[in-house]
Amino acid sequence: MGIENQTSLTSVLGVKAASGYLGIKRDEVPDAALFAIPHPGAYAGVFTQNQFKSACVESSLDRLHAGKSIQAVLITSGNANAGTGLQGRADTEMLAAATAEQIGCKADEVIVLHTGVIGVPLHAEKLLPKIPALVSALSASSEAGAKAAEAMRTTDTFSKASRRQVHAGDDAFTIAGVAKGAGMIHPRLATMLSVLVTDLDIPQEALQKALQTAVSTTFNAISVDGDTSPNDSVILLSTGEKQLKDSGNISVFQDALTEVCEDLAKMIVKDGEGATKFIEVEVTGAETFTDAETVAVTVVTSPLVKTAFFGEDFNPGRIVSAVGRSGAKMDWEKVSVKIGDILVFKDEVFAVVDQDSAQAVMKADTLHVAIKIGNGEHRSRYFTSDLTYDYVRINSEYTT
Amino acid sequence: MGIENQTSLTSVLGVKAASGYLGIKRDEVPDAALFAIPHPGAYAGVFTQNQFKSACVESSLDRLHAGKSIQAVLITSGNANAGTGLQGRADTEMLAAATAEQIGCKADEVIVLHTGVIGVPLHAEKLLPKIPALVSALSASSEAGAKAAEAMRTTDTFSKASRRQVHAGDDAFTIAGVAKGAGMIHPRLATMLSVLVTDLDIPQEALQKALQTAVSTTFNAISVDGDTSPNDSVILLSTGEKQLKDSGNISVFQDALTEVCEDLAKMIVKDGEGATKFIEVEVTGAETFTDAETVAVTVVTSPLVKTAFFGEDFNPGRIVSAVGRSGAKMDWEKVSVKIGDILVFKDEVFAVVDQDSAQAVMKADTLHVAIKIGNGEHRSRYFTSDLTYDYVRINSEYTT
Repeated sequence: MGIENQTSLTSVLGVKAASGYLGIKRDEVPDAALFAIPHPGAYAGVFTQNQFKSACVESSLDRLHAGKSIQAVLITSGNANAGTGLQGRADTEMLAAATAEQIGCKADEVIVLHTGVIGVPLHAEKLLPKIPALVSALSASSEAGAKAAEAMRTTDTFSKASRRQVHAGDDAFTIAGVAKGAGMIHPRLATMLSVLVTDLDIPQEALQKALQTAVSTTFNAISVDGDTSPNDSVILLSTGEKQLKDSGNISVFQDALTEVCEDLAKMIVKDGEGATKFIEVEVTGAETFTDAETVAVTVVTSPLVKTAFFGEDFNPGRIVSAVGRSGAKMDWEKVSVKIGDILVFKDEVFAVVDQDSAQAVMKADTLHVAIKIGNGEHRSRYFTSDLTYDYVRINSEYTT
Repeated sequence: MGIENQTSLTSVLGVKAASGYLGIKRDEVPDAALFAIPHPGAYAGVFTQNQFKSACVESSLDRLHAGKSIQAVLITSGNANAGTGLQGRADTEMLAAATAEQIGCKADEVIVLHTGVIGVPLHAEKLLPKIPALVSALSASSEAGAKAAEAMRTTDTFSKASRRQVHAGDDAFTIAGVAKGAGMIHPRLATMLSVLVTDLDIPQEALQKALQTAVSTTFNAISVDGDTSPNDSVILLSTGEKQLKDSGNISVFQDALTEVCEDLAKMIVKDGEGATKFIEVEVTGAETFTDAETVAVTVVTSPLVKTAFFGEDFNPGRIVSAVGRSGAKMDWEKVSVKIGDILVFKDEVFAVVDQDSAQAVMKADTLHVAIKIGNGEHRSRYFTSDLTYDYVRINSEYTT
């Protein structure tokens, strides 16, 4: 995938980045990342579907619904500012206002995203004195971009960035994105966050539609443990630098945006807590998309399936069992399952597979499971990781 | 709970039991249990909702739908006879016919249940020579009853039996049940099985209704890992010995049946793979039962919630997060959560809980989580265990 410094957001013309310490964490490691574009630009966002929402998601949704343009995104880590009531919302807006004042834009032209411990007051007033230094540090250098992507990291084992530079006929544009993982390395720390920027000038409504399309098959198709944080957010800004000359190229933009999102989503799964395997589950032949998705989700969230992959145990019975209990509408007589190239189940009977072939397919770091549930035309693809000792260790240790 | 030998099925007058080795397992440990009543009696059954069904579930369902009376239940372990096609169904029927011949009843008056490896041919013809000895061993002794309950065990760490002897006015009757757990100690081994017998004479239709009612809040309200086997079965037979004198006492029977099922269901959870905690999750205030159940299921299947309980980590954020993402209809402003006696979340804000109280509640072996999601009158209660290193070890080890 090639994650390099120059794939961070500063690789898009005009984007500046900074990182620093606001005072949320105890150990003075960077707990803030800031990304800014030259002028307020079109803003699209997709957020957690959890009814339990962080103050920052509520704040970001308000700006989205009001059709605001956005000039900067501030990301803080160490405290999720979730389950903190009205004071929590005030804390988020205080940080937005302080950042906006230094940048020279309006408070509602700044997005604030939080990640960290749930249910603990943020006390934003204690963080405000450090905002001017953070804004002053904004730089268009690739080093600043890389450091800001690093500062988002917190619970990830590697920083995540991806970029596409597209040339299509007379059009040339760039999409870049950074992300932090869904893994919850520390108890009570959670959240998947991603910030994307493009230089292509796209109106807000079209930008929002493009982001929703991209997210549906990428960030919304990954599962480390099936849990969803109150803070999950994907933000896309447009600097508006490049005008689209050939309107037909909007589909090229859509494809590139989806690719960047897929890169980042896959990195998040590969960096899932304790993960040793990357597993792609593809369901085809469904009568509706919902049926296809239900089967895929049931398989990728099955602890029995995930522990079998960790143990490299060739165990088609667990996959077929998960398919059967998914509740999706399917034509059971037509259900077939492949692990890698091996057909393991068809016509209601398991195939006889010799042990060498079975072990060979399970040894791989990346596995593909193909499930056909009938003759319908709908499909769904999900990415997940295995369930390991380290997952249990990471999530059961009491560290606070 | 008091599990004693005399709580096995032979504690009901006329019930005989036997256990033995048919040749399914390699190491000559008992792999068969047999329970028989004096004459074919009313039969009720509740089976896996998995679309992937073992041959034995299909066979048992056929007898149920045909309104057959049943005289004996044969349980074999080591092979689930699932995903084995038409030959699998023939294998099940061959065992039923051979058992019936020895007992002196019809083939469709015998239920056969299997548990074990999925997708491997059973080769019943090799097992038939041992059936006469098994039937000959049938005995009404409490020792035979206890040994048969032991023989069902296979993957459980203790055998599971429960009984209620009821005296209500002029009526006196008994309900006894045995079960094996849902835990899947060995890879590819699965299945929750339970056989219950009562001496009360109850017509088939009423018996079926009573069993469904009892199962809905007991066996169907437990979750070790959210997976459901193709073989899960609960069977209830009536010997018809005792006539109900006061028809109003049918509700007493219902309560006693539910209690026996709840005893067995709780034992299964406590014996869940690697379990160190027993967790009861009660959801109240829902507008519909489905909403209540959706919240309960989401919480008891959340790996983050279950690892936190294993680590004795006081982590209300994970519970509230699971409630929020459940998708159930709820009144978020009215959601409240208690762990034990501690109110941890109310009015969208987490309570401040001192560390001593938090640790005290998490140290307990049995925990109660109460979740109120509004002012509706529907409720749901689920039982689960924690997610531990041993769960991962047990389910990832390659032992075949």
